[in-house]
Amino acid sequence: MANQPDISAVKAYLLSLQDAICAALESLDGAGRFREDAWQRPEHGGGGRSRVLENGAVFEKAGVNFSHVQGASLPPSATAHRPELAGKAYHALGVSLVIHPRNPYVPTTHMNVRFFATAESLESTSSSSGSASAVPTWWFGGGFDLTPYYGFEADAIHWHRVAHDAVAPFGDALYPRFKRWCDDYFFLKHRQEPRGIGGLFFDDFNALGFERSFALMRSVGDAFLAAYRPIVERRKATPFSDRERQFQLYRRGRYVEFNLVWDRGTLFGLQSGGRTESILMSLPPLVRWDYDWRPEPDSPEARLYDVFLKPQDWLRFDTPPSTPNPQHPS
Amino acid sequence: MANQPDISAVKAYLLSLQDAICAALESLDGAGRFREDAWQRPEHGGGGRSRVLENGAVFEKAGVNFSHVQGASLPPSATAHRPELAGKAYHALGVSLVIHPRNPYVPTTHMNVRFFATAESLESTSSSSGSASAVPTWWFGGGFDLTPYYGFEADAIHWHRVAHDAVAPFGDALYPRFKRWCDDYFFLKHRQEPRGIGGLFFDDFNALGFERSFALMRSVGDAFLAAYRPIVERRKATPFSDRERQFQLYRRGRYVEFNLVWDRGTLFGLQSGGRTESILMSLPPLVRWDYDWRPEPDSPEARLYDVFLKPQDWLRFDTPPSTPNPQHPS
Repeated sequence: MANQPDISAVKAYLLSLQDAICAALESLDGAGRFREDAWQRPEHGGGGRSRVLENGAVFEKAGVNFSHVQGASLPPSATAHRPELAGKAYHALGVSLVIHPRNPYVPTTHMNVRFFATAESLESTSSSSGSASAVPTWWFGGGFDLTPYYGFEADAIHWHRVAHDAVAPFGDALYPRFKRWCDDYFFLKHRQEPRGIGGLFFDDFNALGFERSFALMRSVGDAFLAAYRPIVERRKATPFSDRERQFQLYRRGRYVEFNLVWDRGTLFGLQSGGRTESILMSLPPLVRWDYDWRPEPDSPEARLYDVFLKPQDWLRFDTPPSTPNPQHPS
Repeated sequence: MANQPDISAVKAYLLSLQDAICAALESLDGAGRFREDAWQRPEHGGGGRSRVLENGAVFEKAGVNFSHVQGASLPPSATAHRPELAGKAYHALGVSLVIHPRNPYVPTTHMNVRFFATAESLESTSSSSGSASAVPTWWFGGGFDLTPYYGFEADAIHWHRVAHDAVAPFGDALYPRFKRWCDDYFFLKHRQEPRGIGGLFFDDFNALGFERSFALMRSVGDAFLAAYRPIVERRKATPFSDRERQFQLYRRGRYVEFNLVWDRGTLFGLQSGGRTESILMSLPPLVRWDYDWRPEPDSPEARLYDVFLKPQDWLRFDTPPSTPNPQHPS
């Protein structure tokens, strides 16, 4: 039974995670309050709880969505790796958030945890009728990533340390794998530029069976506040001028470009009849585009590109040196 | 010979059109000046002349691009209707512009004229070696469309009158066909909302042979200024307050959504190794997104949605009534 997927347990966790994150963000903000839209789209088999905080003291816009979509036919964007599942009836549940802070020294962030299952995988008879070697037709996905405007090494190290520790109990290989997956996923091909300093990204995950895979997703979801809150607290009162504000607005354009051109989650939402206002809640409140703008060499803005928009091993700075590998002749 | 495609004639026309439009826009603006980036991308076989006017008196941003891309392998987005051409070597030439005025009473506009040809169709031997019934593997495309923030019936009628007259000499069926094509193309499916009041859109056009098809494209290109200039002159000094400005910034978000999610030209550019800064010159200089914003009923903002964001026959207002059709029993 422990490896039979339990959709009601997943749903209960996701709703409690949304509650916990919204409460923590309100507390961090001190002034802004979330408003909630509970919505149903019976014609698409979808429903959810969209929550948005706008014009807070710390957060210019924070959207934290729970949704549960039931579809008659899984669109291809849902899983690039399992084309044989296209067309099947499915459930997709998730919590997704994007936070756009007011102060340019506080990074933008995104977190998502999700569960996909074909309708047939949730029927209690399916575990007995399937052969032992059948690949499960349910999986978890998730992760979180950070998009600074002005980078700080200490923040990047802290962010990746929390990410590492969230997945370490589930296997040593997971952090390097999910970290690289994040770097690869949040990449603007048309700019040849990462979206930010990355973090974790995983999808199609069921390798540990239902209970342990679910525990991994919970560990990632629960780690988000531990990763983000200290950075907000450290940076939210940093003085800034119009220069930093304009750079923030400009860089937010990259966020829009990524989400509308490359993000599989956005495409899936729009293709599956999701609620447009909830999906596009990720877009920044105010954005600018300037033609062919480039930072002054050696400026704080150039430092973002030169140091932070390069995928790198942030944990090299705070882990004890590993035993040197002997050089093998090649 | 008249129906053998002449790429150098097309190129000369497009460069002269870019010059004429930029000169007219500078004159309309009175203060702003275009700056030009001539660019070459030898690795992709592309080059062009990007011109942008930023922070003018009338135009907050106007981008007018000429590009000539030579590719080894035509991507699928180039022509949805001719899948058999995917993979062929090709030339793509065009002028494309997007104008974002400062005053919210002046509409945003887009114009594009373009020529595609497989490399083999340009070889002088191809006309003799092909059979008489072969479908040409070159075609023209183009059109212009208008996106008002505050609509005026007189402007919409004028816009469509000029559009109608530009294509009427080439056949009575063209305006209704290209007008509907425009309405269908510039449609935000995820919003179930047109981008604006439309105009003309055509693609894959070679039905009149090279000389007459080229003349049609020129007629559309030449009509753009006649369509847009009087509207700018009429509206550019209309007083406005922060209310109209904020609505303009909000509606510009729809422009971004269309261009990045649905526009085939943008996707083709990004897929074919186009110059990102030139392609994304179409994005507005400043944009806002508000969660689930709706206009007050009966407000001037609601009027945009209720009257102007509904496809309709704008010429019904100024054409003489046609002879009533006899009713045929069905």
